[in-house]
Amino acid sequence: MRRKTILEYETVSFDPEKRALVIIDQTLLPGQVRLLSLTEIEDIWEAIYLLKVRGAPAIGVAAAIGLYVAAEQIDTVDEELFYQQFKEKKKYLETARPTAVNLFWALEKMEAVVKKNRGKGVGEIKKLLNREAMQIHDEDIEVCRRIGEYGLKLLNSGDGILTHCNAGKLAAVKYGTATAPMYLGQERGYGFHIYVDETRPLLQGARLTAFELAAAGMDVTLICDNMAADIMKKRLVQAVFVGCDRVASNGDAANKIGTSGVAALASYYRIPFYICAPTSTIDMTLKSGSEIPIEERKETEITEMWYEKRMAPENIKVYNPCFDVTEKELITGIVTEYGVAYPPYEESLRRIFEKKFE
Amino acid sequence: MRRKTILEYETVSFDPEKRALVIIDQTLLPGQVRLLSLTEIEDIWEAIYLLKVRGAPAIGVAAAIGLYVAAEQIDTVDEELFYQQFKEKKKYLETARPTAVNLFWALEKMEAVVKKNRGKGVGEIKKLLNREAMQIHDEDIEVCRRIGEYGLKLLNSGDGILTHCNAGKLAAVKYGTATAPMYLGQERGYGFHIYVDETRPLLQGARLTAFELAAAGMDVTLICDNMAADIMKKRLVQAVFVGCDRVASNGDAANKIGTSGVAALASYYRIPFYICAPTSTIDMTLKSGSEIPIEERKETEITEMWYEKRMAPENIKVYNPCFDVTEKELITGIVTEYGVAYPPYEESLRRIFEKKFE
Repeated sequence: MRRKTILEYETVSFDPEKRALVIIDQTLLPGQVRLLSLTEIEDIWEAIYLLKVRGAPAIGVAAAIGLYVAAEQIDTVDEELFYQQFKEKKKYLETARPTAVNLFWALEKMEAVVKKNRGKGVGEIKKLLNREAMQIHDEDIEVCRRIGEYGLKLLNSGDGILTHCNAGKLAAVKYGTATAPMYLGQERGYGFHIYVDETRPLLQGARLTAFELAAAGMDVTLICDNMAADIMKKRLVQAVFVGCDRVASNGDAANKIGTSGVAALASYYRIPFYICAPTSTIDMTLKSGSEIPIEERKETEITEMWYEKRMAPENIKVYNPCFDVTEKELITGIVTEYGVAYPPYEESLRRIFEKKFE
Repeated sequence: MRRKTILEYETVSFDPEKRALVIIDQTLLPGQVRLLSLTEIEDIWEAIYLLKVRGAPAIGVAAAIGLYVAAEQIDTVDEELFYQQFKEKKKYLETARPTAVNLFWALEKMEAVVKKNRGKGVGEIKKLLNREAMQIHDEDIEVCRRIGEYGLKLLNSGDGILTHCNAGKLAAVKYGTATAPMYLGQERGYGFHIYVDETRPLLQGARLTAFELAAAGMDVTLICDNMAADIMKKRLVQAVFVGCDRVASNGDAANKIGTSGVAALASYYRIPFYICAPTSTIDMTLKSGSEIPIEERKETEITEMWYEKRMAPENIKVYNPCFDVTEKELITGIVTEYGVAYPPYEESLRRIFEKKFE
């Protein structure tokens, strides 16, 4: 039997027979493509916390399907009791990752379904929750495709494109956000040269982005994070495309640690720097990036190589923020499914949302 | 018996009994402090090539002692024959690393001894070669101490200092270059907070710099390379101190890959960026950094973790330059053993050399 490639699976999906959340276990990539079928809420929480599923859009979809899977198991016909237990499960899932707003956004959408349909009975509400989760899943594919179309217009044939971390297919359901223009360009023969930051400490660039883009047949060059300035100086890169975990209303964007450094370098070398953000990632309730909570992670992610061999002495401190905030001044444009927002972002992001709710 | 710490050994030394070059094997750090005693020129070449001894000053000292060790073994009293074999050994050692100018500088100094003393007999020349190698070794300690004094004047008590790669004791004989102000400041109670870039791909920052500074009792925080922008933005860092492998006469400086990115970030966040350079590292024959040869190293340094586990897919390209060139515009000052040079560097570096040859 032929081994399936990463392209044949969705990153996050629902198995209606097993009533399970199905994800590709990303901690095993690139060595092994293994699907996990999750039905227990503790396992779903852990899959998000341990980055088995990661990437803002994918976390949102996984949380929605995960919450549906958990809600389906609530064994009562009493709506009040159901709602109480539903809220507990929702609250629990909210604690899995603090930075990605899609997690909260998706869980809110799910709760809104329960609230809006009170009186219809638990069975009907469960059906509607399933429909909502699947809609969030399907929308992600469409949103990413549209981001790809808008992003592609910012690029030329043969361009070198740098990306950081993984805002790829593996961070969403399909296409990805930052990679969507690359996938569409690949289909249409643009001949891009993609440079991928390996993205320490967990190497999502090396393990995930390089992996999925090479699987799609693209020309991929892996670099260490500290080589980005060098390839910019050598004009090997014409544009930077990255994803994001949360954008504030002023345009400040939280994304994987290292993103703001890439942005500052791009600014120095006068290379356009684009953030790709589904509107679900844009949090208009935040005035600026300083209000975005930043997750700090375990020291051993840096000091130990995949928990096998210690690479740093014992008697030192370690700083390990998972994200940083890129100042709006460093962002050339924010690519959404409703078009590209340019500075000043208070203005342009507001217009994006007007378009969305038209 | 108490285990010796790194501080009790010189990084590079000569064992007069065994007539051997003695080095700390840096590829085993931080797990194991092991001394290597080398007498065969192939082993000396390999120790330099495989980074068992590394850092521009240490490479120079190791090459000088190594060439002496090899010259001592030349079994002839015929001066012409001796010189011929000496030149071959010198040429061989020159091929070990292309970028560090100290390698060539030290080997040239050794050859000058042979040339200047022709007619004195092979036995006498061997003695003089030994004396020259030991002088290069002793001078390195003194040069680093003086760089430390000049560097310390640029700092204030309690400063946060960022460094990249290892320009420490382990890159020289003692004190190091970029770390010399830190060691002297530590002796004098400055209470610095040292931030160390781990420095992918070979993690010299994590394995060597964090290790040696923590052994000296300093307050050390390890970060991934891509976190430098974040700690600058948070004003945790008041100055950047790095070493270098070769400085051109215009001030462009080649150093470990990633240095130029740190410099561009420091410039963006208005943090002073200093290169520490013994004059042996300054190559006044080069007009600019574009003339400095840059070594490219093996892909597996990036794609495989210490050759144990593959961390990237097979079907991708990898870019792995060992060094980059920091443009003179990004360098606040160059700290030498004859004082600090400031822009314009053509002028100030010339004055440094005038002082040297006064």
